[in-house]
Amino acid sequence: MKGQFAGRMANVQKSFIRELLKVAQDPAIISFAGGLPNPGYFPVQPLRRAADKVLAQDGANVLQYAPTLGYLPLREYIAQRYAQKTGLQIHPDEILITNGSQQGLDLVAKILLDPGDEVILEAPSYLGGIQAFSLYQPQFRTVALHEDGVDLAQLSEAAARDRAKLFYALPNFQNPSGITYSAAKREAAARILHENQVFFIEDDPYRELRFMGDDQPPISSFGRERGFLLGSFSKIVAPALRMGWIVATPPNMDKLIIAKQAADLHSNYVSQRILHQFLLDNDLDAHIGTITAVYRRQRELMVSMLEECFPPEVSFTLPEGGMFLWVRLPEGVSSMDLFNEGVKANVVFVPGHPFYVDGSGQNTLRLNFSNTDEAHIETGMTRLAQALQNVMRQAS
Amino acid sequence: MKGQFAGRMANVQKSFIRELLKVAQDPAIISFAGGLPNPGYFPVQPLRRAADKVLAQDGANVLQYAPTLGYLPLREYIAQRYAQKTGLQIHPDEILITNGSQQGLDLVAKILLDPGDEVILEAPSYLGGIQAFSLYQPQFRTVALHEDGVDLAQLSEAAARDRAKLFYALPNFQNPSGITYSAAKREAAARILHENQVFFIEDDPYRELRFMGDDQPPISSFGRERGFLLGSFSKIVAPALRMGWIVATPPNMDKLIIAKQAADLHSNYVSQRILHQFLLDNDLDAHIGTITAVYRRQRELMVSMLEECFPPEVSFTLPEGGMFLWVRLPEGVSSMDLFNEGVKANVVFVPGHPFYVDGSGQNTLRLNFSNTDEAHIETGMTRLAQALQNVMRQAS
Repeated sequence: MKGQFAGRMANVQKSFIRELLKVAQDPAIISFAGGLPNPGYFPVQPLRRAADKVLAQDGANVLQYAPTLGYLPLREYIAQRYAQKTGLQIHPDEILITNGSQQGLDLVAKILLDPGDEVILEAPSYLGGIQAFSLYQPQFRTVALHEDGVDLAQLSEAAARDRAKLFYALPNFQNPSGITYSAAKREAAARILHENQVFFIEDDPYRELRFMGDDQPPISSFGRERGFLLGSFSKIVAPALRMGWIVATPPNMDKLIIAKQAADLHSNYVSQRILHQFLLDNDLDAHIGTITAVYRRQRELMVSMLEECFPPEVSFTLPEGGMFLWVRLPEGVSSMDLFNEGVKANVVFVPGHPFYVDGSGQNTLRLNFSNTDEAHIETGMTRLAQALQNVMRQAS
Repeated sequence: MKGQFAGRMANVQKSFIRELLKVAQDPAIISFAGGLPNPGYFPVQPLRRAADKVLAQDGANVLQYAPTLGYLPLREYIAQRYAQKTGLQIHPDEILITNGSQQGLDLVAKILLDPGDEVILEAPSYLGGIQAFSLYQPQFRTVALHEDGVDLAQLSEAAARDRAKLFYALPNFQNPSGITYSAAKREAAARILHENQVFFIEDDPYRELRFMGDDQPPISSFGRERGFLLGSFSKIVAPALRMGWIVATPPNMDKLIIAKQAADLHSNYVSQRILHQFLLDNDLDAHIGTITAVYRRQRELMVSMLEECFPPEVSFTLPEGGMFLWVRLPEGVSSMDLFNEGVKANVVFVPGHPFYVDGSGQNTLRLNFSNTDEAHIETGMTRLAQALQNVMRQAS
């Protein structure tokens, strides 16, 4: 209507997490809220040297407009790494460099979703995905997550529906739940999606942050025709570079290129060149090894604090990688109440219900263990345990 | 429909210009096609020093996730520069840092356009704008451009229509036409838009590239309530940084923040910090003075070649800044024919008809004078004049 916003804006709010992170700026607050990497382990000096090198050696080219798909040697690097780590054979022209994998969610939604199309979400699911999709006015359907991945019966039922268009999954160390799909679940999910002609987004920013257990094959290794595999350097190099990518087959990539050109012509080329130089001159595996060793220690400390200081009716996931633990409070205990009590004690986390589109999950919460250190985990978890005691006492 | 792309993808093609630029990669070809700055004048060493400084002094912060709106000191810098250069008083929180101004087009379209809403375009208009809007399935209405700006009678008529939602204008050295609005036209256009409750995008990436004549007040200085003022560092610092911005009032900015979070969380923070350090440590006005002196000479040479080597029935605009000349061939002479003849002679430009949404402009073309040098302008324009002779001989 004249002078009014588009209909798509009516029901979408600002990111709950990004608003909440503003609260967490206060240095007195211990935050388990954000999904931030540990800045103590950013490769600052190697990136500094890489920036200096590319600007010294190729400055004028580094600063000019650049191809839509992205810098070819960077795309070749990504393709080679998939071949080496997962066996997936991907042509560099099947890779589009995006502004973090968040932009991948927006672009894929843009080329696929008409209003009313059904998007199948894991319950719980990533808030940024829910937000990106919501702007294209789909209907959401949800499928439960078990310890080994998606509920296959629920996925079959949802995928068989007439308007089922897209399944959105984070099969490795899911945000928010920390859950990882078994190989069997991956293959079965791929078959269900193929049989029902349903597109899928395999959102995989945490894959390389595995600190125990065995790598699992990407869902995309069981078929890529309707798949969009999203990756990111945000968690393994640095988020501020906003460097992610989409892997897609040619007919899908053709549409993504149109959407990318319309969105911003191409991704930041200076950062692509700096990142590529960093990858050439440094041992990424060694760097990831350093990070995962730290995250493993921090995750183990957080788990042991949960075991020791929290009542036994509090349950939680045991992720093999990534950055998050998922906690379930006793039925009837509200994680929003715990959040409010936590703020008073200078400790914050993300309540779980925004990760559900159906209003459930009132007794769940997400704890981030990456963006902190062991001393803060110990203090913060002690405060949180005390806050939970207070909430449970008030409730009883 | 199941397994199909969204309806919005049906009628949008890849960017004609970006496809065409692939042809122009051949170093034997002289290109007046792209909208690229002259890479010979990029501030490579100052940007190199700025990158080194921010990574040395504040590396861990520079590499972390960052606020959606963008780096506050950079937004303060932009606000101060508006105050100084245009008198516009803008609060830093009314500025959102985007991936070039192209992303501004996408985000504003996203928050405003429902399918069937009417977008009023200048004829001709910027291709990237047409592409960005098209994905939100509007109806396009066009208004003619005269030497002093938009046709006010046509704008009044278009703005009065029930579904008129948005007017898209480039009032300074328009891409593609090179036309600049007079102050009177700006004020009159602002009044028409206000009276009819029509939003407007004032796309202004070239404003600081003025090399003759007097600055004109932004359309936004006559009212900002429904205005989105887009700016960019691409033409005055470097495009590869993908640093643009949107100026919007609070209720509109609230919606833009939602769209920006969904699109990519925030703009590249490393580039924001490098750019801001560059702006602190260098004299931007002096740098712009260097560029505009070069562009002025190149524009004057191109104009004199048009006057001397082309038949008198070829007309063209005389831009006071920016990067483009707009050429009108005699009625019935096709610029696509000239393009094909030009390719044979190793000179390319952009035919004009893609800049019109109604299929007109078959005898028009856009010449870029920034991304080249005087020797190439002389050789290229000589080739183009010969190619035109060939086309006109064949046509007669």
